Amino acid sequence: MQRYKLTIAYRGTRYHGWQTQGVNPTWKGEAPPAGHGIPTIQEKLRRAIEDVVRHEVPLVGSSRTDAGVHAKGQIAHFDTDKSQIPIEALRQSVNARLPGDILVRSIEPVAGSFDAIRSTISKRYQYVIWHAPDRPPFFNDLVWHRWFKLDVAAMQSAAAHFIGEHDFASFAKPGHGRDNTIRTVHDCSVSCRAPRLVIGIEGSGFLWHMVRIIVGTLLEVGLKRCAPESMAEIIAAKNRTAAGPTAPPQGLYLQWIRTEDAAPVLESLNPQGSSG
Amino acid sequence: MQRYKLTIAYRGTRYHGWQTQGVNPTWKGEAPPAGHGIPTIQEKLRRAIEDVVRHEVPLVGSSRTDAGVHAKGQIAHFDTDKSQIPIEALRQSVNARLPGDILVRSIEPVAGSFDAIRSTISKRYQYVIWHAPDRPPFFNDLVWHRWFKLDVAAMQSAAAHFIGEHDFASFAKPGHGRDNTIRTVHDCSVSCRAPRLVIGIEGSGFLWHMVRIIVGTLLEVGLKRCAPESMAEIIAAKNRTAAGPTAPPQGLYLQWIRTEDAAPVLESLNPQGSSG
Repeated sequence: MQRYKLTIAYRGTRYHGWQTQGVNPTWKGEAPPAGHGIPTIQEKLRRAIEDVVRHEVPLVGSSRTDAGVHAKGQIAHFDTDKSQIPIEALRQSVNARLPGDILVRSIEPVAGSFDAIRSTISKRYQYVIWHAPDRPPFFNDLVWHRWFKLDVAAMQSAAAHFIGEHDFASFAKPGHGRDNTIRTVHDCSVSCRAPRLVIGIEGSGFLWHMVRIIVGTLLEVGLKRCAPESMAEIIAAKNRTAAGPTAPPQGLYLQWIRTEDAAPVLESLNPQGSSG
Repeated sequence: MQRYKLTIAYRGTRYHGWQTQGVNPTWKGEAPPAGHGIPTIQEKLRRAIEDVVRHEVPLVGSSRTDAGVHAKGQIAHFDTDKSQIPIEALRQSVNARLPGDILVRSIEPVAGSFDAIRSTISKRYQYVIWHAPDRPPFFNDLVWHRWFKLDVAAMQSAAAHFIGEHDFASFAKPGHGRDNTIRTVHDCSVSCRAPRLVIGIEGSGFLWHMVRIIVGTLLEVGLKRCAPESMAEIIAAKNRTAAGPTAPPQGLYLQWIRTEDAAPVLESLNPQGSSG
């Protein structure tokens, strides 16, 4: 058996997330309710791989991105005994079986000890706001359109408060199911190249909706509805109601995931989709 | 009654074209077959306008773009007696009632003699080919992904043959329903800024699928399957089978339409309207 590490890009618009989240235990053994027949990205990818290697493939992904959230560098792993398939042929065969909005950017053989979840060291998300009077009709599902005067300097000042080790309980969707809500944020920055305003957040790990709640809270600061200094109080409250609203999924990108295997991770997706 | 000229941008991916084309006469008076319940852009826009002005609005568009084809500058016109609505409020109200992939870019009051079809002087289309090894997962519905070595210089040389007045019968989808297949092409050019290869075609008017068949034929030249000089023979054949395949709709954009009215927007803002 050979283990492979996959780096995957996808547009989340048409999917029910990487993997359906928060399945209600009362559904067990029954048909899922309406809406749960929507495909997941994991399912599409697993079937494409199985079609190539011709055996069942449990596929483990690093991040459970929500419905409508995109990825430039999701990481996953799987095992196969068909390790005689040349690696680029394997990648192209899998891509040929995937819809146009999912792309396997790279496949690498890794040690059997590699695990997409446990080997994760840090992750970076990007949130893209389209800051212009008119919405962009060609990529309305790839950005969040907001048009009002934003105090970007105040947002930058507020963003700095998230850096470091904090209890992020105020920034987690209730029902996240984690006992430990302490996380370390390595970077949180706001940059503006009109009409794009990009919020980048890098950290050891993230709670459910954490990035989207941080973005929603930073927007409140940009609108001068709350002061940059109040971020410390909001963190200290450890209560979801203290923070701002949850930004919608379509502006969110899982940019990259750094893993322990030490092979340099693709830094960003250039539009060609070739490795950086 | 005041006539208004609209300039509209849309992503055609989710729609059955600007207006359903080539309706089979045998359907008349019957329910349309499956698939014909898919909305058209004209229908979405007409309903949004009617919802604002509160009366029925026949909406006339300049170009009947096909399913999956996009527009940066489609032109349409409609009449309303609600000309007291300030123009920017009208535009914003209509946009608020449209889905995110359709945008009214501008509304201008025009003379009652203006007609989106008859006042058209020329149009420009763009066709975008994504010329890179991997497809682009974030805009797979906005480009045509092709990866093979293309002789761009040969394509440029071939493109020049289309410029001028020609009978374009070889470049029309059979069943186009036009007696006169003579059209004037003012410009046909190929430019490459990797990974985008853009074919621009400007002309007095276009036959059904004409741009997509020209693109498909230029691709054959790029692949060295036919010589640039053979374009003259293909035109002279006046037979669809002489030309190359039809390129798919997702790479095609209606870039702009030049019309006769020529009145700058602000010249005719009085409620009585009627410029020139």
